[in-house]
Amino acid sequence: MRTALLGATGLVGRTMLALLETRAWVDEPPLLLSGARSAGTVMTFRGRAVTCTDAAASGIAGVEMALFSAGGAASRVYAPRFAQAGSWVIDNSSAWRMDPDVPLVVPEINAATLPRRPGIVANPNCSTIQVAAAVAPLQRAFGLKECHVVTLQSASGAGGRARQALAVELQACLPGLREGHASPDQTGTGAFPRRLALNVLPEIGAALPDGSFDEEAKVVRELRKILGLPQLAVTCTATRVPVWTGHAAAVRCVCGRAAPRDEAIAALRAAPGLVVADAAHGYATPLEADGADPVYVGRVRGEQGRPDVVLLWVVADNVRKGAALNAVQIADLLAARPRSV
Amino acid sequence: MRTALLGATGLVGRTMLALLETRAWVDEPPLLLSGARSAGTVMTFRGRAVTCTDAAASGIAGVEMALFSAGGAASRVYAPRFAQAGSWVIDNSSAWRMDPDVPLVVPEINAATLPRRPGIVANPNCSTIQVAAAVAPLQRAFGLKECHVVTLQSASGAGGRARQALAVELQACLPGLREGHASPDQTGTGAFPRRLALNVLPEIGAALPDGSFDEEAKVVRELRKILGLPQLAVTCTATRVPVWTGHAAAVRCVCGRAAPRDEAIAALRAAPGLVVADAAHGYATPLEADGADPVYVGRVRGEQGRPDVVLLWVVADNVRKGAALNAVQIADLLAARPRSV
Repeated sequence: MRTALLGATGLVGRTMLALLETRAWVDEPPLLLSGARSAGTVMTFRGRAVTCTDAAASGIAGVEMALFSAGGAASRVYAPRFAQAGSWVIDNSSAWRMDPDVPLVVPEINAATLPRRPGIVANPNCSTIQVAAAVAPLQRAFGLKECHVVTLQSASGAGGRARQALAVELQACLPGLREGHASPDQTGTGAFPRRLALNVLPEIGAALPDGSFDEEAKVVRELRKILGLPQLAVTCTATRVPVWTGHAAAVRCVCGRAAPRDEAIAALRAAPGLVVADAAHGYATPLEADGADPVYVGRVRGEQGRPDVVLLWVVADNVRKGAALNAVQIADLLAARPRSV
Repeated sequence: MRTALLGATGLVGRTMLALLETRAWVDEPPLLLSGARSAGTVMTFRGRAVTCTDAAASGIAGVEMALFSAGGAASRVYAPRFAQAGSWVIDNSSAWRMDPDVPLVVPEINAATLPRRPGIVANPNCSTIQVAAAVAPLQRAFGLKECHVVTLQSASGAGGRARQALAVELQACLPGLREGHASPDQTGTGAFPRRLALNVLPEIGAALPDGSFDEEAKVVRELRKILGLPQLAVTCTATRVPVWTGHAAAVRCVCGRAAPRDEAIAALRAAPGLVVADAAHGYATPLEADGADPVYVGRVRGEQGRPDVVLLWVVADNVRKGAALNAVQIADLLAARPRSV
C-alpha cells in the first residue's frame, strides 16, 4: 500500500515512521512530506535513507494512505487534496476532529464509525485518547453520566523542541537546588507559558471565552464525540507538569448505575489496549509508560456513599497511544479492508 | 511569652523559627527541642545562637506556647505533657487532628473553635489548609455539598531531606535528557515511593484499606472537620510532582445553590488570606507561591449546565501557609488573648 507521511520530522511524525516500519502492509518507504524548511531532511526507513520533500511541491498521485502530523494549518490545506485524490488521510491535528462528516476514532472504542470509502479520519487529542480508552468500558458496563478529568501532561505534548527546552530549564535550576532553593528568579525558556522546570502550569493551549484553555475544551468535546454522548457532563482541568513523556489523568466517573469495584475492574480488564492494576493501590506512572503501547489504568476506587462513582488514574505514552500509535492503529484497520478499487 | 519549638531543625521547624523572629509577642529565644540525634544543633534567633536540647531530657516549666513539628510519635508523647504543664501546644503532626476534643484550626475559617484554656490545637494537613481556605468562602456564600480535589504536591511536603533527593535524581537525569530520553533505567533515590524526577506519583502516605493513600484520607476527613460539615461528600486524589516547594490543587465544588462566577469571585476576594485572580484565565503556580504567605485562587470557572458548580485552581507554599505560617497564625491569636493566669 502506498503511504505518505506529512510532518515526518516532528516528534510524533518520527514515531509514526518507526511504527510504519513494523507494519506488513507498508511495502515501500513512505513518501515523506514536510514544510519547505524541513525539505531535504534525510530520514531512515528499514535501513534505507528517505529524503523529505516539500509538500507544496510534491505530487501525491498513487498515495493510498496518508498520515498527517503537521499542525492544523497544513491539514486544512492538504487533507482535502489527498482525500480527493483517493487517499485515506489520518490526521493528528485538531483541524477536522469536530467536523460532523469526519469520524474521530479510537480503534478500541469506535472503529465502527470508519467510513467505507477513502476520506479524512481524525486522530483525537492525546489526553482524550487515554481518558476515553479508560472510560469507554465503564460506559458499556454501567452507562456514563459525568466525567471529571484533571490531567498532568508531559512536556512532550508541546513537541520535541519544547521538551528539550525543559531540559535547558532544569539544567539552569540545578545550582540553586544545591543551595536549597528553586531558582525563583529564572524565567524559563519561553517554550511554555511560564517556566515549567520545578513547576506546574494549569494552562495548555489558547485561552477561550468560557474561562477554559483549548486543551480542556478539546477533552470535553472530543470525549463526547468519541463516546457518542453529545450531552455528557464533562469537566477538565489540564495541567503541564515537568515530565519528559507520558500523560497522567485523575478521572472521576459518575456512572448510570451502581458500579462495584470488582465489576469495574472486570469491565476494564476485558477491554483491549488497557493494562489494569487489580491491586487496590496499583498504578503506573508516566515514566513507566514512556515508550509503551498500552493505556494503564490504576487506583480504581469507589466513592464513599456513591455506589455509582468510579475513580481512576490513567497513564499512557502521549506520543505513542496519544498520537502516533493510535493513528497507525487506525491505518491498520483501513489497510486490512478489501480494496474498494 | 515563653515559647518552645519541638522539631526545630526540620524544614517546617526552621520556618516556624524564622516566623517567630518576626512576632512581637515572642520576647526571648524559644526553647528549641529535638530528638537526641539533633540535640546540640545550633540555630539562630534574631542573631543569637540557640542550641537544641534533647526533648527527653529538657525541663518545660514556664513554657506558655509550644509549636510542634516533629512527627506524630513525638507529639503523642510530648503534647499532653506540655498541655498538662499549662502550655498551649500547636501541633503540626496528624496525631491529634481527629481527636474530638482537639480543635483543627485554619484561623481565617474557624478561629472560634479555639478553646479558652491552654491545651492542644491541631494544625491541619498542608493540602487541606489551602483547599479549605479557598472553599470556605464559597461555603459561606452558597453552601457546599461536594468537594472533589486533585492535588499536585511538591517534594518539600516530604521534608527537607526528600526534597534534596529530588535534586539528586534530577542531576542524574540530565545526561539522558541531552540524548533525548528520560533516563528510564534510573531508579530514584528511595526518598519517594518511586523515582520522582520527571515523573508524577499518585501515592502519598500509607496505603489504606479503602484503596486511598493516607494523604487523601487526611484531606477528606480534615476538610469535613474544619468546615464543620461531617457529611460533606469529598474525594481526593493526591499526587506528588517534581516541584521544589508549593502545592497546587484542582478543586471542583458543588455548592448548595447557584454560584455565578462574579458572586464567587466577590466571595473569594472578601475572604482574608486569599489572593484571587479576577481575570478569567488568571492563576498562580507553585514557583510563584514559594516563600509567599497567601493562598492563591485562580482559574475560577463554572461548569456548563451546572450553575451550582465552581472550579478552582488553588496554590500555596505548603511549608508556610500549609504548615509553619498557619501554626504561627494560631499562636498569634492565642498570644493576643488576655492571659488566663
